[in-house]
Amino acid sequence: MAAEQLNQSECNRSRVMRFLYNNGVSSRAQIAKSLGLTPAAITKITAKLIDEGLISETGEIEGARNRRSIGLRLDPERFHFIGVKFARSLIQVGLFDLAGNAQRIWVDMTADHPSIGDAITSLKTLIGQIMARFSTVVAIGMAVPGPYLRDCGHTAVVSSMQQWRDVNFPAEFADAFAVPVFIEQDARAGALAQQLFGDDGARDDLAYYLIGEGVGLGVVERGRTIDGARGTATEIGHVSIDVNGRRCDCGNYGCLERYCSAVAIHKALDEDGGIVADSDTMTHIEACEALFALAADGDARALELVRHIGTYVGYGLITIINAFNPRRIIIGDIVSHAGEPLLASAMRVVDDRVLPELAATTSVTLSDLPTDAAVTGAAAVAITAFLEQPSRFADIARRRRGD
Amino acid sequence: MAAEQLNQSECNRSRVMRFLYNNGVSSRAQIAKSLGLTPAAITKITAKLIDEGLISETGEIEGARNRRSIGLRLDPERFHFIGVKFARSLIQVGLFDLAGNAQRIWVDMTADHPSIGDAITSLKTLIGQIMARFSTVVAIGMAVPGPYLRDCGHTAVVSSMQQWRDVNFPAEFADAFAVPVFIEQDARAGALAQQLFGDDGARDDLAYYLIGEGVGLGVVERGRTIDGARGTATEIGHVSIDVNGRRCDCGNYGCLERYCSAVAIHKALDEDGGIVADSDTMTHIEACEALFALAADGDARALELVRHIGTYVGYGLITIINAFNPRRIIIGDIVSHAGEPLLASAMRVVDDRVLPELAATTSVTLSDLPTDAAVTGAAAVAITAFLEQPSRFADIARRRRGD
Repeated sequence: MAAEQLNQSECNRSRVMRFLYNNGVSSRAQIAKSLGLTPAAITKITAKLIDEGLISETGEIEGARNRRSIGLRLDPERFHFIGVKFARSLIQVGLFDLAGNAQRIWVDMTADHPSIGDAITSLKTLIGQIMARFSTVVAIGMAVPGPYLRDCGHTAVVSSMQQWRDVNFPAEFADAFAVPVFIEQDARAGALAQQLFGDDGARDDLAYYLIGEGVGLGVVERGRTIDGARGTATEIGHVSIDVNGRRCDCGNYGCLERYCSAVAIHKALDEDGGIVADSDTMTHIEACEALFALAADGDARALELVRHIGTYVGYGLITIINAFNPRRIIIGDIVSHAGEPLLASAMRVVDDRVLPELAATTSVTLSDLPTDAAVTGAAAVAITAFLEQPSRFADIARRRRGD
Repeated sequence: MAAEQLNQSECNRSRVMRFLYNNGVSSRAQIAKSLGLTPAAITKITAKLIDEGLISETGEIEGARNRRSIGLRLDPERFHFIGVKFARSLIQVGLFDLAGNAQRIWVDMTADHPSIGDAITSLKTLIGQIMARFSTVVAIGMAVPGPYLRDCGHTAVVSSMQQWRDVNFPAEFADAFAVPVFIEQDARAGALAQQLFGDDGARDDLAYYLIGEGVGLGVVERGRTIDGARGTATEIGHVSIDVNGRRCDCGNYGCLERYCSAVAIHKALDEDGGIVADSDTMTHIEACEALFALAADGDARALELVRHIGTYVGYGLITIINAFNPRRIIIGDIVSHAGEPLLASAMRVVDDRVLPELAATTSVTLSDLPTDAAVTGAAAVAITAFLEQPSRFADIARRRRGD
């Protein structure tokens, strides 16, 4: 069989997997109709998927015109995935099922280790232990701060934790485990999580606007992420909002990240001194959470700062809308915890400055994925790979089970 | 035959057409190998394409291992396309062959007509005449200033020619002729022209940075344009370079377009008064060309202004690189005629402000398509459609010939 034909078969299997993933239990007829495949083709594709243990038959379900037919389903608990999220100051590791449900989350503060090398060794040990305990793990996804230079394998700017720049992620991790490792820029991983686990309505045209220790963006357009030639596209955090503004470590001036990241907020709190007491003894996350808690309690100065930050978040939204025109923008990570006051302030800017036709047709929401689920994006990277090449992972699952 | 299978067949025919388009005369074996199709499939696909008059057999050509085989070719002169470029102050119409060679260009100054309605009537008459004379015309492409709201069918911001905003392009043109009409934002059309007719090296990851009466951008990523949910993505002209900067008609502040478009340059010349004499009696294009001619002659003040504009062009480049990470950026339209001094000034900004790894791997050039070929982009929109659905246009060609 020619390579292309093999790809075509795997592509069709992937389409069936995606359909079942998005639509739940379905009959062969429903799948065939939706994907425009012939009944004969569907019979062949699903037979192979069943044979590989990727899908299974359920009992009879209600079909079209009240006819009953056998249902097919993906079992979300049959396969597991490890997600690893690297942030400036911590590493989160999660064990997930196919539906993106976290079975367990581990958090490791980088600062607890004498060096990045030690932190990596400790991470490898943890992953090895999880793999040994759960033979159902078939892939690992990793989310790293952008800009992530795919060819070189390292992240280019990590302001508050320079040593991360020396880590070559594929060299460290690609062959370190018995299952494949997929590495992606963190905001793009977040966008994949929204595509897989989020609102059905705008699955194929959305943007995930990550405002954490850094500011990043992942865009899914017509079902695919926008990556760029070297994988560094959609780096909204380093798009300038003021060419004469603050100098950034990336070399540019006035980068959005300098105004509304958790690091920038922490800096503002330290410089002010009066809003959050002892902010200079806190981590970036702690300082932000303290500010947001005060604002939620009605503290006027805290609320004013949150609104001020919201304005900058809004400038970023305007750029996202004009540059990428997604149907839906989801704001996630640390700074999204500021909640409604921040969003309201950002939306005032959008309403003032974006073409009304575009403002009216772009939905902007705060992420409703659970708080500790930034790491969900990392798992989504692995699950996306699984759904794209199901047969490859069926082989891995068999090998892992020792069949 | 199921719809999907029909699509699959047309998709394979399209791939063969694209291959011959990009690679010239090729044998069936070469095509099969490159596209990963079986010899049987290629025989079937090419038989249909020959039957439809889309491709033809040449004599024997040199094949692999010195074996001789029959060549296949696309005849670029068998099909013709009309391209229409709408700019703020003029309409250009061109007749093109499949290879993008202009057979003839017509230019119509909007200002010569009492109203936009009259300009449109005149345009329809011209197109009708061209169609009547050339029965080989199978499609019309139109390039309109962005942001172009595809669903509503009108352009949202046309600063110096407000009446254009009231024109509903599909309503006016979609069914006005005996062949299909394809409408696209002008910079995206320019990107398609670069993909079809430009440098082979970066065909599938490039950006066309249009700096004319407006400033626009078209991005081809992994072979496809980035469009956005409503077709208004990649509107670099309305990405702010200074959130506290000049107010723009789009509602935003500090839009790039306000600093380096031909309109902005003309305004600067009028306000200065001393660089280009009587600039206030000139069209935007005339004023810019006069400035660029003075700069080329070594006029110090003209050169200084060109370099100043180049700095802003450079700020736009930084945003393009950080937001889209293309392999290649081509600067085109009126302002690119300023040539090397402008490019050098823009590149100094890029070298100062972009991550070295990215600056080193992004090529930036001035468009080398002929000067009057901004309209080539409009033709590229039609030719892209032709290559995507060859059988559809074979039918149209037959009908037009009266077969």
